[in-house]
Amino acid sequence: MAMNAPTLDFWFDFGSNYSYLSAMRIEQAAAAHGVALRWQPFLLGPVFRALGWETSPFVLQKEKGDYVWKDMVRQCRKYGLPWRRPSNFPRAAVLPLRIALAGAGQPWIGEFCRRTMQLNFAEDRDIDAPETMAALLADMGLPAHRVIDEALSDANKLRLRRQTETAMEKGIFGAPTFFVGEEMFWGNDRLDDALAFARAQAGA
Amino acid sequence: MAMNAPTLDFWFDFGSNYSYLSAMRIEQAAAAHGVALRWQPFLLGPVFRALGWETSPFVLQKEKGDYVWKDMVRQCRKYGLPWRRPSNFPRAAVLPLRIALAGAGQPWIGEFCRRTMQLNFAEDRDIDAPETMAALLADMGLPAHRVIDEALSDANKLRLRRQTETAMEKGIFGAPTFFVGEEMFWGNDRLDDALAFARAQAGA
Repeated sequence: MAMNAPTLDFWFDFGSNYSYLSAMRIEQAAAAHGVALRWQPFLLGPVFRALGWETSPFVLQKEKGDYVWKDMVRQCRKYGLPWRRPSNFPRAAVLPLRIALAGAGQPWIGEFCRRTMQLNFAEDRDIDAPETMAALLADMGLPAHRVIDEALSDANKLRLRRQTETAMEKGIFGAPTFFVGEEMFWGNDRLDDALAFARAQAGA
Repeated sequence: MAMNAPTLDFWFDFGSNYSYLSAMRIEQAAAAHGVALRWQPFLLGPVFRALGWETSPFVLQKEKGDYVWKDMVRQCRKYGLPWRRPSNFPRAAVLPLRIALAGAGQPWIGEFCRRTMQLNFAEDRDIDAPETMAALLADMGLPAHRVIDEALSDANKLRLRRQTETAMEKGIFGAPTFFVGEEMFWGNDRLDDALAFARAQAGA
């Protein structure tokens, strides 16, 4: 990719169902647009709490929640993605988010994120369990214990807290959220607009 | 249109900015899909209050509100629509909603809704003022006073309250919302999905 390739920042949480829709297609979509991708995992829970919500609005607002699960069935069908409604929502994902943050620049980050999302939203697995993550990493041929140790280092834990504070400072109020420079796009429904914007910036 | 044409119900409020995006294109889009359209005006305010919100979430949630106005600029550019952020939001629209409900089956309903939306979201006009509505109706060649008198009849006022109760019973929590039979689609971003669903139902 050229040095001056436009860049898309993808802010997501593994517990966020609409982040699932984006995570599964974003690497391929960005490549097709000639856009560089930066994975920006963050903790959505503290963002919701700062907005005064104890948990996801899909739990707090019954009507919206009822709708969202029907919408997910249709959206997954549209994108050709497997779907099983998680028995625990929003599922805690601190460990996989720490791994993703530590590994955000690694060549395996895309596959790691897709596999973790699939465990949560297609297989209803507890993605925050160390044994789940260890098995996933080993299955990818990675040194699981070394990756997890690094994810659990004090420095990386602090980094995820700072990353989440940065999300709030940027005005993020939900996930997924995309940035092209300072231009913000909220929701999986805006991924294509964000990519088109990134490409247009590069051409300008 | 054939007797068995699939039908799309379009639930909207003239004060809702995302309803504006749908209202301006829905008649043409439905016709292109061979889908019959039913205009279903309702009062979004009582729906929000029933959810515990005093006003629009775009006002109550500062971060989301800041985002929405940037999103509207981009969305209007995408759809080729004029845009001026209303100085009063969400703008009361009881009178135009009463007119739209009384006229929902009339051949002028589409043009009336588009013109009213444009007054609010492109010209920043007080659409709830009787003189604004009278001028708009007269400009369309309609008997303005008769139309307004009918809109203000006790029977039609009651009908709008009942229509709003029906919206809540159907699980509507925002606007625009589309129904194909019992299948619900929320938001302008789902209009194309709703039309595709309607067409597929008809073909089944």
